[in-house]
Amino acid sequence: MLRPFRGAFTTPPADQPVRSARRQKLVVPGESKLLSSLAEAIKASGLKDGMTISFHHSFREGDMIIGQVLTAISELGIKGLRFAPSAVVNIKAPSIVDFVRKGTINRIEASGIRGELGDAVIDGLMDNPVVLRPHGARPRAIEAGELEIDVAFIGASSADEYGNATGLTGPNTCGSLGYSFIDARSARTVVIITDHLVPYPCVPASISQDNVDYVVRVEQIGDSAKIGKGAARVTKNPRDLLIAERAARLIAESGWFRDGYSFQTGAGAISIACTNFLADLTAEKGIRASFSLGGSTAAIVEMFKRGLVRTIQCSQCFDSVAAHAMTSDPNIVEIDNSLYANPHNKGAMVNKLDFGILGALEVDVDFNVNILTGSSGEMMGGLGGGPDVAAGAEVSIVTLPVVRGRTPSIVKKVFTVCTPGETVAAVVTEAGIALNPRHRNYARLRENLEKSNLKLVDIEELRRIAEDITGVPKPIQCTDKIVCLVEFRDGTVIDVIRQVKRDER
Amino acid sequence: MLRPFRGAFTTPPADQPVRSARRQKLVVPGESKLLSSLAEAIKASGLKDGMTISFHHSFREGDMIIGQVLTAISELGIKGLRFAPSAVVNIKAPSIVDFVRKGTINRIEASGIRGELGDAVIDGLMDNPVVLRPHGARPRAIEAGELEIDVAFIGASSADEYGNATGLTGPNTCGSLGYSFIDARSARTVVIITDHLVPYPCVPASISQDNVDYVVRVEQIGDSAKIGKGAARVTKNPRDLLIAERAARLIAESGWFRDGYSFQTGAGAISIACTNFLADLTAEKGIRASFSLGGSTAAIVEMFKRGLVRTIQCSQCFDSVAAHAMTSDPNIVEIDNSLYANPHNKGAMVNKLDFGILGALEVDVDFNVNILTGSSGEMMGGLGGGPDVAAGAEVSIVTLPVVRGRTPSIVKKVFTVCTPGETVAAVVTEAGIALNPRHRNYARLRENLEKSNLKLVDIEELRRIAEDITGVPKPIQCTDKIVCLVEFRDGTVIDVIRQVKRDER
Repeated sequence: MLRPFRGAFTTPPADQPVRSARRQKLVVPGESKLLSSLAEAIKASGLKDGMTISFHHSFREGDMIIGQVLTAISELGIKGLRFAPSAVVNIKAPSIVDFVRKGTINRIEASGIRGELGDAVIDGLMDNPVVLRPHGARPRAIEAGELEIDVAFIGASSADEYGNATGLTGPNTCGSLGYSFIDARSARTVVIITDHLVPYPCVPASISQDNVDYVVRVEQIGDSAKIGKGAARVTKNPRDLLIAERAARLIAESGWFRDGYSFQTGAGAISIACTNFLADLTAEKGIRASFSLGGSTAAIVEMFKRGLVRTIQCSQCFDSVAAHAMTSDPNIVEIDNSLYANPHNKGAMVNKLDFGILGALEVDVDFNVNILTGSSGEMMGGLGGGPDVAAGAEVSIVTLPVVRGRTPSIVKKVFTVCTPGETVAAVVTEAGIALNPRHRNYARLRENLEKSNLKLVDIEELRRIAEDITGVPKPIQCTDKIVCLVEFRDGTVIDVIRQVKRDER
Repeated sequence: MLRPFRGAFTTPPADQPVRSARRQKLVVPGESKLLSSLAEAIKASGLKDGMTISFHHSFREGDMIIGQVLTAISELGIKGLRFAPSAVVNIKAPSIVDFVRKGTINRIEASGIRGELGDAVIDGLMDNPVVLRPHGARPRAIEAGELEIDVAFIGASSADEYGNATGLTGPNTCGSLGYSFIDARSARTVVIITDHLVPYPCVPASISQDNVDYVVRVEQIGDSAKIGKGAARVTKNPRDLLIAERAARLIAESGWFRDGYSFQTGAGAISIACTNFLADLTAEKGIRASFSLGGSTAAIVEMFKRGLVRTIQCSQCFDSVAAHAMTSDPNIVEIDNSLYANPHNKGAMVNKLDFGILGALEVDVDFNVNILTGSSGEMMGGLGGGPDVAAGAEVSIVTLPVVRGRTPSIVKKVFTVCTPGETVAAVVTEAGIALNPRHRNYARLRENLEKSNLKLVDIEELRRIAEDITGVPKPIQCTDKIVCLVEFRDGTVIDVIRQVKRDER
């Protein structure tokens, strides 16, 4: 049943039609989809013990949908659900851990599980291993029939009573709803939850009424202050700025930096600084990028306003500037997360990337990237789109400091392999740039960078520098119990995470 | 196998997931979708004898895609195909009749078959009956698994080499590609054909690369003069103007004419005149329509510019003004034809219509509408969205003169039932308005109209007036051979068309 990882592009999909749990349905004129409460919608959806429910994470830390829905489900006494959001946000009151302990949820599939839930999972909370998938793998799994969603709960900052819905307008705008498109078209039943009902028809409509069964209005779907959290994550840390500038210069000297280049930079502090350096280098050279991809930020919107990128192809918005920019120009486009990164559609947009900037917790000497687990085996992040971007981009660049506190970032073997080394072209640190000899563009990249004055080092050298500072870390002790399966984008298992022995620390 | 019509809303879909022939596919970075010729694309698509091919009809009389593709298929010696476009346009050189005679095509499924092909079919050209479906029934049939498309050929006025495509830009702009959305997401293989390749990524993109297998550039996809044909179909015929004004006044006096009303008027000469009268009545009353639906025209764009309608929800563009307006404002929206009219999605937009103006060739005393066959049994039109609009709208209005030349339009029994009488609220003629006592809104409509000074007559009275002028027409003589199955929107057979005996005329 479980298939092992065999290489970035070696496991094709099964030769079968794409799956969907969506049903045809006769809705007669005059019929209303508006229900009075979440409980009504859950009852109408036919949700039963053991079924699968989904959410999107576009509201991020500000999400108030998941807590309300799980509370209503729990109050109805429904148990043993598979909880399959696009990612788990760190919601605290109520905590998802409580719903696991109560038995409302007994399986989790997501891109990442952060905070309290992540810690509880790695300490053995769940009987069933959590399945973690990169962003591109979730729509793949749904269309392959591996993740069948019974009821999708989709939060929308504006919606009409017939289900046309968007995240682009309304008081609690979150921006792109790109993660929920696959849920809308594939779930058996779709419930739109909004705090802002607008007159029919809602324009723009990211989600279309013909996919929606029910609409519920609640008092609040999210905390707009937290939705926009991170808007101004502009770092002043000199080390991070050095890494960011070096990554931007690597891009400029790589050989792929020309009019019409494309990029995805992401939302970390280094990434945002790198975007700003990249903008200036683009302006200096007098060229324009064709598109930026994936998560959008104020820094990317600023590039767009400066005329340095033709179109923003946006699957999610990392800050409120990016969210509010979505309706300002037809060249800022809300895209489906499947279009963005699904490796088994007919060609994802990541395939057309020249440059991808990736964050990491650890990289090892084989260039494998860990973006999930921290130095003590704690759950620190999510797979996100990193494995997708690395596989797609001509030049995939991991940016990280050689050490964080007393922890080395460049290690012999990462604790959790998330992104396979073969897909990583370069690792950029404050101590130099390591190119990956096994990457498909190594020869060309090396030739171009050797002409520059950028400092190239061996990855082993970076590991030595790191270990000279921190010493060799003590291995994390684990039990035999597998708490997470880490899937690669093609559905193969690239690694597992085992329960950490806390008593030995 | 064939299910008889039982009523407008009485046949629900089967309880099964929606079907798609689309496959998951591994496309690696660097792989190109651009092929050098239609023949290459046809070979790459795996098209074989007996398969099903599809096209859209957005280029209308100006289409140059169908002829080129069928010629290439024929040259490759592929035979026995099911030809399943959204509608058949009247292409003459080459004629589709030739491809039937050659054996390239042996089955046809469409919304209408016009011109030379229509005449040949009704005279017995095909061994298999042609299946005619209203616009809403085609996506329904595809998602029900009744019409599985092996290869969809989608003409686009702009496209990039990875398959992002649109009808909204480029030298041969046709406007909305709404009919092809279902093909793009449901066909096993999708080929984009364009005469205008644009840099990646094409923005706007109506069709998304993740649904597209191959892209072919041809010299010309359509004749833009003919694409825009009918732009200025403003009638000066006093009888038509009278009917149009009366239909508009019926709308205004109906009881459903209020701020936020919605309408679909269509593209006939009476319809366009009616749109203009409706615009003035809307302005006079100081209200605004919430949306117009379906096929868009210059008259509707003019209403939008006057601020008399909030949003145009456009599944096709009937003229070049409408086509070019598509990118001018985010409230002019390109919509999926399935969203527009599919009776078995989760609620089509036709369900939200207050007013629908329908054309007709004949109406009978039971209010059944014939929009396919003429007075001598010739094929005159297509089902279009008429049956969908009639079923969805609160007030569905058939506009037609009581006689055309020496032919009565109001008859005892229509030759072909296309739209069932129960879904028609009113018939508007120069001799008065007949309300349908069997329509669900009859009582309210009658009450309101009796307060107006509009002339209400009995449908039998209209028939007598017509027959007084023309005499009772001689029945059309047919053989036993069924040449067309006329499906209602839910997939039931509402009528059949038999081969006409030409020797008796």
